[in-house]
Amino acid sequence: MPEIVTPRVQLIGWTEFRPPDGPDWQTDADGGAALVEFAGRSCYQAWQKSVPATATNAGYLGHLLQVGHLQVLEHASATFYLTGISRALAAELTRHRHFSFSALSPRHLTEQAEVVEPAAVAADEHLHEAFLAGVAAAQQAHRELLAGLAERYAGSEHAGLRRKQLRQAARTLLPGASATTLVITGNLRAWRQLIGMRASDHADQEMRTVVIECLRQLRKLVPPAFADFVITRLPDSSELASSPLVGER
Amino acid sequence: MPEIVTPRVQLIGWTEFRPPDGPDWQTDADGGAALVEFAGRSCYQAWQKSVPATATNAGYLGHLLQVGHLQVLEHASATFYLTGISRALAAELTRHRHFSFSALSPRHLTEQAEVVEPAAVAADEHLHEAFLAGVAAAQQAHRELLAGLAERYAGSEHAGLRRKQLRQAARTLLPGASATTLVITGNLRAWRQLIGMRASDHADQEMRTVVIECLRQLRKLVPPAFADFVITRLPDSSELASSPLVGER
Amino acid sequence: MPEIVTPRVQLIGWTEFRPPDGPDWQTDADGGAALVEFAGRSCYQAWQKSVPATATNAGYLGHLLQVGHLQVLEHASATFYLTGISRALAAELTRHRHFSFSALSPRHLTEQAEVVEPAAVAADEHLHEAFLAGVAAAQQAHRELLAGLAERYAGSEHAGLRRKQLRQAARTLLPGASATTLVITGNLRAWRQLIGMRASDHADQEMRTVVIECLRQLRKLVPPAFADFVITRLPDSSELASSPLVGER
Amino acid sequence: MPEIVTPRVQLIGWTEFRPPDGPDWQTDADGGAALVEFAGRSCYQAWQKSVPATATNAGYLGHLLQVGHLQVLEHASATFYLTGISRALAAELTRHRHFSFSALSPRHLTEQAEVVEPAAVAADEHLHEAFLAGVAAAQQAHRELLAGLAERYAGSEHAGLRRKQLRQAARTLLPGASATTLVITGNLRAWRQLIGMRASDHADQEMRTVVIECLRQLRKLVPPAFADFVITRLPDSSELASSPLVGER
Repeated sequence: MPEIVTPRVQLIGWTEFRPPDGPDWQTDADGGAALVEFAGRSCYQAWQKSVPATATNAGYLGHLLQVGHLQVLEHASATFYLTGISRALAAELTRHRHFSFSALSPRHLTEQAEVVEPAAVAADEHLHEAFLAGVAAAQQAHRELLAGLAERYAGSEHAGLRRKQLRQAARTLLPGASATTLVITGNLRAWRQLIGMRASDHADQEMRTVVIECLRQLRKLVPPAFADFVITRLPDSSELASSPLVGER
Repeated sequence: MPEIVTPRVQLIGWTEFRPPDGPDWQTDADGGAALVEFAGRSCYQAWQKSVPATATNAGYLGHLLQVGHLQVLEHASATFYLTGISRALAAELTRHRHFSFSALSPRHLTEQAEVVEPAAVAADEHLHEAFLAGVAAAQQAHRELLAGLAERYAGSEHAGLRRKQLRQAARTLLPGASATTLVITGNLRAWRQLIGMRASDHADQEMRTVVIECLRQLRKLVPPAFADFVITRLPDSSELASSPLVGER
Repeated sequence: MPEIVTPRVQLIGWTEFRPPDGPDWQTDADGGAALVEFAGRSCYQAWQKSVPATATNAGYLGHLLQVGHLQVLEHASATFYLTGISRALAAELTRHRHFSFSALSPRHLTEQAEVVEPAAVAADEHLHEAFLAGVAAAQQAHRELLAGLAERYAGSEHAGLRRKQLRQAARTLLPGASATTLVITGNLRAWRQLIGMRASDHADQEMRTVVIECLRQLRKLVPPAFADFVITRLPDSSELASSPLVGER
Repeated sequence: MPEIVTPRVQLIGWTEFRPPDGPDWQTDADGGAALVEFAGRSCYQAWQKSVPATATNAGYLGHLLQVGHLQVLEHASATFYLTGISRALAAELTRHRHFSFSALSPRHLTEQAEVVEPAAVAADEHLHEAFLAGVAAAQQAHRELLAGLAERYAGSEHAGLRRKQLRQAARTLLPGASATTLVITGNLRAWRQLIGMRASDHADQEMRTVVIECLRQLRKLVPPAFADFVITRLPDSSELASSPLVGER
């Protein structure tokens, strides 16, 4: 039977910072936020905090965002481990070229019972039953095809390689709702761009859910780099996020 | 009923070249091959063909490949229109970050009858029937879910946006074998890398089929930039391609 | 004596297009403009021109720019051969990561007489003389250092490699005004971004001169992809360019 | 008078790791090394250490390098603050597109006394004197041109912008040996590639010195990701580094 899972977002990697010898400077933040400020100041060797508005780390990063000096955001990164996401979502996320991904190998697992249910489906008992039945039928067809392929090609050479390719052939029957995992790493500039594009009203609900949870955790990690995003709750109780400083594309 | 389609690869874009005023140089090729030679010679302002082995365009490009001066291959590009490929294949191709893609929107089409059948399945009548039945059931479940979603949310606001999101929700029932299209553009260096990775014995058969057809057409377009690849026929009549000059990853 | 040269921009590479079999579609443009329209329509398989405003190629591309569907601009590219530019300019241009470059090898040439004079200097006879004198002294110091290095290391092993490294050591005395060449290739999206950043009032005058000449030639090549840029003449007779659709960073 | 400075490399940023809930796994490393192992295992959900050779973190990462599964190295990054490097070196480094840089603004500083002396020059008293004299003359010419420009354009509008542009114009007289700083961030895969290209016998000596010092500090940070590189001392007492697993380009 299909097992319904829901997305989980866990922060597993981030940037630490240690100030170098030389510049007579210190700041009221650490980690990626401090590194970004250091990099920004190094462009002008501007270690004196002569302007009150940018004398705090939050003030300095806010200024960088305002004037669009975004390259310095690239020095700090964050990595999340995403589980319980659909293969359809993973395929959309992995198109973001400025990120690095480790995806579940498409030919590794034989058991594929877990699926992610769209919220619009889950909200209605009848649709939920139809979805479950569709998934169950697809998983059954997948199992039968896999067994048939294994039997047909039992005597083949290169059994290890062949087995992977048969799994991959059988998997073409599995639906896009099948669950998968993803390790995703990006720098703060890339994360801002992705959130701007993928937390908007035009994104589907699973995407928004995952991306907005990333935003919440990024905000804890490096508050001033994401302070401009506003999260809004929609009538259907899902959320969207946007910033006046990030275009949607 | 599912309709089985097969991959088609059509070259639709390529690089033309016009030599500039200035350098006292001409060559025995045109298009991307001539542009690559021009760019290579410009690095040293080496317009005289003093070395016989590199006096022809093919000789010059062969030398670039041998010494690994691959950056100059980036000046020439090629674009293919891929049709009749599976969504599973498209998801793997679009992970190649040095390429540019235009993919079929995941929420646009309602009709999804076309599928791509794995060769290992097509080779056996029993497996073929099982595959067709699995696909037919998934497409039926998709249609029913889509109709149910439309009915359930008929009165919603933002009907246009909502309709797209309902299509996207329903589509999670469709299998990875569902057919799609892709416009793919890459420079010659990126194409060599992709072919080296994706035409090998480790790639699945649909991937190899598509990539090797790209290779054949690239060889007609810019012969010396792909002359080092060797295409081999396997016992199962599928093909692989490799070059001693390209690592697999 | 120093020889003063001025920038020259020559279009040497561009994208051609041939429509594939299949789609029942034609357009009133060719080359990159047609390829971009084809790629845009393929995302929705929207081959019918149902909306008058987007029935022409120019109308369609204008719509893509308006809605920010910029990925499709990546399918078409343009290559320029830049001569008579300063090494300082080349160093700034080559930081644009979405472009591909073939630069003059830093250790190849021994003769380095050509220089690019900043416009603010050339506008004043006294400054012009001071600039020329400074350059002449630097070139003389470079020649002497090169000769001294050659003499000192005359008997070394690996003469070929060593000679290149000595040239590179001596060249550290040459000024940023020294002339160089560059082959630069980018897709239309990247060109729009670079022009938006580098043709603005914040860029120095040599950069603006070169980039605006690229813009003029791109406009002849693919008019609708650059129709939104406005070129303005400043009081000092230099120019800047900007578009309401492109941020400066 | 010119002041001679020497390169300094300081590690200022790196990746930390916290394992997520879920996988029943732990390892004998932390930071980037542990994150890379986690990402690699997540591709196969292979949390059991069934193969002794890959049961340690060092064994697992060594295996990734051997089989060329390099994408997982992208999850961990390192940032260095480089000071006392020449502008010529900075221009070459910033061409590496997979890195992020914060460079000293080309129009910010007025004082430009510090220079980096090539080792081949420093090794000979006579060449050293010639180099110093050349640099001193260039710095003097730069100061005079800057003063002349300031006087000539004293009454201009937009004084702030103008002042930056005049600095940039004057700076074209400064030699490539002028000292600058750079904040450079890259993931471990990019660092391996850069070291493979830039620590070889074909690179100039300043480049090798800086890159090999980066390698030494990366080896302390994430030992198994760089264990394959061998550092060799040349007859001229400079060093080169290479790995059998990294091509030179």
